[in-house]
Amino acid sequence: MSVSPGASLRAIRERKPLVHQITNYVVMNETANATLVLGALPVMAHAREEVEEMVGLAGALVINIGTLSPHWIEAMLAAGKAAGAKGIPVVLDPVGAGATRYRTETAKRILDEVDVAVLRGNAGEVATLVGVDAEVRGVESMAAGSDPGELARAAARALGVVASVTGPVDHVSDGERVLRVANGDALLGTVSGTGCMSSAITGAFLAAKPDAPLEAAAEALAAFGVAGEDAAREAKGPGTFHAALYDALYNLDPDTLDARARVS
Amino acid sequence: MSVSPGASLRAIRERKPLVHQITNYVVMNETANATLVLGALPVMAHAREEVEEMVGLAGALVINIGTLSPHWIEAMLAAGKAAGAKGIPVVLDPVGAGATRYRTETAKRILDEVDVAVLRGNAGEVATLVGVDAEVRGVESMAAGSDPGELARAAARALGVVASVTGPVDHVSDGERVLRVANGDALLGTVSGTGCMSSAITGAFLAAKPDAPLEAAAEALAAFGVAGEDAAREAKGPGTFHAALYDALYNLDPDTLDARARVS
Amino acid sequence: MSVSPGASLRAIRERKPLVHQITNYVVMNETANATLVLGALPVMAHAREEVEEMVGLAGALVINIGTLSPHWIEAMLAAGKAAGAKGIPVVLDPVGAGATRYRTETAKRILDEVDVAVLRGNAGEVATLVGVDAEVRGVESMAAGSDPGELARAAARALGVVASVTGPVDHVSDGERVLRVANGDALLGTVSGTGCMSSAITGAFLAAKPDAPLEAAAEALAAFGVAGEDAAREAKGPGTFHAALYDALYNLDPDTLDARARVS
Repeated sequence: MSVSPGASLRAIRERKPLVHQITNYVVMNETANATLVLGALPVMAHAREEVEEMVGLAGALVINIGTLSPHWIEAMLAAGKAAGAKGIPVVLDPVGAGATRYRTETAKRILDEVDVAVLRGNAGEVATLVGVDAEVRGVESMAAGSDPGELARAAARALGVVASVTGPVDHVSDGERVLRVANGDALLGTVSGTGCMSSAITGAFLAAKPDAPLEAAAEALAAFGVAGEDAAREAKGPGTFHAALYDALYNLDPDTLDARARVS
Repeated sequence: MSVSPGASLRAIRERKPLVHQITNYVVMNETANATLVLGALPVMAHAREEVEEMVGLAGALVINIGTLSPHWIEAMLAAGKAAGAKGIPVVLDPVGAGATRYRTETAKRILDEVDVAVLRGNAGEVATLVGVDAEVRGVESMAAGSDPGELARAAARALGVVASVTGPVDHVSDGERVLRVANGDALLGTVSGTGCMSSAITGAFLAAKPDAPLEAAAEALAAFGVAGEDAAREAKGPGTFHAALYDALYNLDPDTLDARARVS
Repeated sequence: MSVSPGASLRAIRERKPLVHQITNYVVMNETANATLVLGALPVMAHAREEVEEMVGLAGALVINIGTLSPHWIEAMLAAGKAAGAKGIPVVLDPVGAGATRYRTETAKRILDEVDVAVLRGNAGEVATLVGVDAEVRGVESMAAGSDPGELARAAARALGVVASVTGPVDHVSDGERVLRVANGDALLGTVSGTGCMSSAITGAFLAAKPDAPLEAAAEALAAFGVAGEDAAREAKGPGTFHAALYDALYNLDPDTLDARARVS
């Protein structure tokens, strides 16, 4: 299947898929808004009592481990398994894997027990999950041992997922092919939760293109990166950039998006 | 009592009522800021250990079920009952009622056990609670069977509340009269949590006018809608609209508000 | 040691200390972004299972009691004790102490069991903790009985901390000296969580200057206040001010900061 973020964006805006997110407290508002302005419908629900029913209504499930606790992990696993049973694609964002054992082990447990379609993380987090040396400070990746394209390929093979490794240039791999996405702006690194937003948007693209997770993951990053480029032109710093980023996602033009996407 | 959002806004800014909110993780910052810039004082507290004491200090309690879990439900009920015992008005925002049984049943349980003054929801949520067919996807109302004015009247009668049904045009009813509020802007639908903000603001107006919940609920929606109109003129999209919305609420002029309110 | 917010800001941007925050749901995104744009690295983690490991990676721990519950208190105490054992400085923000017994008692318990370096609160909260009469409504300080400089000195002595009492003018004391910080803008009072942001930023300065908590606390407030002054010039109200505040923190110039700081 070909890479066309414009066609997928058009499909998202027509179908308005529900993207169920079990995510961290820090970025809930941000990922809800990123999902909504893109054209999909976000919903946050984390209670064991309702996650299986809620995920059944969704086009994709996004699990993000940024602020963990035992009840939440239980809900993530239940929702993830319910999604798997119904063929609903799952995105995992392993925030802070490598920083503490609790995060590393939780990410691994979700990868073991849930059928994860796309693993979206920074180089340090993904490297940790495939056993490559990495430095993760809190939730920031400081350094990872290997080339990010090779890391994505190795992670995809080892973990049986599409690995979406974001950084100055993003690399997405299904274990065979590696797509390189060169959109974005340095200001994305100055707003907390832009990685989490890219995971939420990956969920929306995956809902529109569930049978092509490699392409969907790359398209999501290209679309988000193009929006970042547009927002940077309006910004005087991280705060005005953050506001402009929602404007830019909302104003993304499907007709010019394919030409602006730098996917190779 | 007559409808005068300007007079009520003046009263809010003079008395600065405390609005105790037990609300969802996604919008806490947003509803706190909406309450604060309007001129009231927000406080968020959800622990069973303190909610009864906290609500005793408040001019209104806002219960919002957007991200539920068992402990929070327990606190909502305890706070709601304490508010009732002290004559403090309660607003219920049944976010996502109709999407999962857990949300529908929790909203119904609160309506049964707490003396709710104003139920503020979208058409799908309110229709669900009165047993009318509705489509709710996640937290978005897709369609409701009936005319929204009739729905508000029916909900008010069936549930013994003032029903405040928001949408492109809002309808507020006490079971007899129906007030129609035609302020607002389409950009309000592009920011996650604007419905929740309107519930918080309803709490502030109710604190200023506790004996006239029908008028207070309509005034709140008119004031919020006028602020939305002002914000839309400053906005390039949902992100700049969101920032401008707080500016506009802060800059609302009580002297011109009655003339700008489109309440009929 | 001398007061030089410029030198400390330069150190923060070079070393990028991790600031571990166990804080309230309302402001998590805001304090994460304030920390990040200043130049440090925020991390939020609240699970009993990981807080001790996480704080071991950090340059400072910030405990904020704005939305409490029993599990969170347990984690705050565990993290605080682990920080103490490792010589990592701790900031306590006693949000709403004085409003409910639960908050007052929790703040006192943390002060008893954890080696708190800096207590950062408003006059009502700090007065409550030293037994001075104060009026606290929700999380806002309405009035405190004593002069804020004297209050800071008394709190520092009674509680064995550096007391950082913020208000129209801020006062920081170690029980002997009192530093007066006269930067800031009235718009800071119109955005929910700016007090919490100042505590997070205090954590970052403390990480850069752990042996001089009095100076670090005053420098943090001066830097935050100067950013507030810059943001106010760009703002049309609280919403645009909020966005501009992150821009201003990011654009703070270490070379001119000492001259702009009004610390006496």
